[in-house]
Amino acid sequence: MKLIVLGAAAGGGFPQWNAASPNNRKAFGNHQDCPAQTQCSLAASIDGDHWVLLNASPDIRQQIISTPELHPPDAPRSSPIRAIILTGADVDAIAGLLTLRERQPFTVWATEYVLGVLRANPVFNVLDRACVQFRTIRPGESFQPVPGLTCRSIDTPGKPPLFMEATDGIAPTAGSSIGLQLESPQGRRAIFMPSCAEITRDILLAVEGADALFFDGTMCVDDEMIRSGEGSKTARRMGHVAMDEAIARLRDASIGQRFFIHINNSNPVLNRASDERRIVEHAGWTIAMDGTRIDL
Amino acid sequence: MKLIVLGAAAGGGFPQWNAASPNNRKAFGNHQDCPAQTQCSLAASIDGDHWVLLNASPDIRQQIISTPELHPPDAPRSSPIRAIILTGADVDAIAGLLTLRERQPFTVWATEYVLGVLRANPVFNVLDRACVQFRTIRPGESFQPVPGLTCRSIDTPGKPPLFMEATDGIAPTAGSSIGLQLESPQGRRAIFMPSCAEITRDILLAVEGADALFFDGTMCVDDEMIRSGEGSKTARRMGHVAMDEAIARLRDASIGQRFFIHINNSNPVLNRASDERRIVEHAGWTIAMDGTRIDL
Repeated sequence: MKLIVLGAAAGGGFPQWNAASPNNRKAFGNHQDCPAQTQCSLAASIDGDHWVLLNASPDIRQQIISTPELHPPDAPRSSPIRAIILTGADVDAIAGLLTLRERQPFTVWATEYVLGVLRANPVFNVLDRACVQFRTIRPGESFQPVPGLTCRSIDTPGKPPLFMEATDGIAPTAGSSIGLQLESPQGRRAIFMPSCAEITRDILLAVEGADALFFDGTMCVDDEMIRSGEGSKTARRMGHVAMDEAIARLRDASIGQRFFIHINNSNPVLNRASDERRIVEHAGWTIAMDGTRIDL
Repeated sequence: MKLIVLGAAAGGGFPQWNAASPNNRKAFGNHQDCPAQTQCSLAASIDGDHWVLLNASPDIRQQIISTPELHPPDAPRSSPIRAIILTGADVDAIAGLLTLRERQPFTVWATEYVLGVLRANPVFNVLDRACVQFRTIRPGESFQPVPGLTCRSIDTPGKPPLFMEATDGIAPTAGSSIGLQLESPQGRRAIFMPSCAEITRDILLAVEGADALFFDGTMCVDDEMIRSGEGSKTARRMGHVAMDEAIARLRDASIGQRFFIHINNSNPVLNRASDERRIVEHAGWTIAMDGTRIDL
């Protein structure tokens, strides 16, 4: 199984358009300690020719241009991207669908909840339904988005996107945020869980024995944004468990490679020279970065 | 008046994610003849501190990072971007609004038609209405989006976005696509018209005497996409007059600097070494490029 980190940052990216903290300034200024990171997405493939993207970030156009594996192989129009799986309906997971127009066939896999959010927004009709198929991910049922890759959703404690809270007809519900298990024909397993509000016993069971885990690294500590003056909400209120808690809770799990992904611009680990980065790496975790590639 | 081309390409950008024509391949490969271009947007300012963006392209995050004038000056959160004017409701004009979240105050100016499209899509509620003001552009009325800059809409023959054609409650109407006149306190005038289906007598009158014109350069010739096998529609069917006709019709107009902007990835002028590029430049026009700056 081939996995490419297309984007490692949380919603807003790094730097975020209106954020001027010391680390964001370094990222705007192209400082070597703070390389810019696009918004969270992974590409996965078994054969190297057919790729599925996990989430469609607002930066998807830039991510495709930066990733030779995803360039169109044949003129006039083509793409190795055959499917998109959406793990939630937040802007940073769905906005990139608006870029994937131009009559290119592929399949969008998502929960009923997320498909309902797309239907509630006619702007997503730019995806021509004669070309693009929408398929429902059902709890417990596996599906093959590209040849050889078997996927299954993992129930994840989370929350629906804020922008839907005031919209009638779509109640917050199960399926607003999921994790994914990806399995190769050889039984190698990767887990993608960019948003997880609590590490329950079920989550511990789901990640046990995985060859690679890409886990919610939004915040380093729970009150990070309150301390920095960048916000008024805790990580948990935003649907994320902080890194310090994840490191402690997952310490004894048997996992091959552990990556944090979906890293917010307020998180000090984005600075390679930070104490926090050293501490997290010392605990056996890797900070995912745009362009990180692994083979399982 | 300071003007910065944030993006010169039409919807899809250059290269387009699924396009593999020789020029798109060169752009994917970073070839010197075909520098990549992001989707159409201009930034304008009188004082250099307060900026208005003309359209919010899907590439807006990348465009802001590439443009030091638009970086946030003050921690924790700030932005020199004080307003956005939307000239239409196509994805390449509005999707960037989804990036401008995070409780940053600014004003969105658009016609009733375009504001209606935003209201019909709850995803745009990510823009917190406590921070972001929505103001209506009325035909013939001028407005000041940033200090010193006086703007006015120009009725432009065009068409509403395809994705709204099937949506009830929003009928195609005037205001689906406009041009803009920008005027400085010294009376210098710039015209931005990225989408124009026909050069009528009214359009000729509107551009006469302008110090700078940024005009619809989507297609080089009307049947460009049919010839290249990339599509089945003429430029006119898509709401655009082709360059060859624009050059002829505007030959005798009195205009300071003439730029083509909103250039589709199928347009051969995007290759700097092309015959078409030489012909267009010989006719007195400049192909706008990402990062082009002018001072009027």
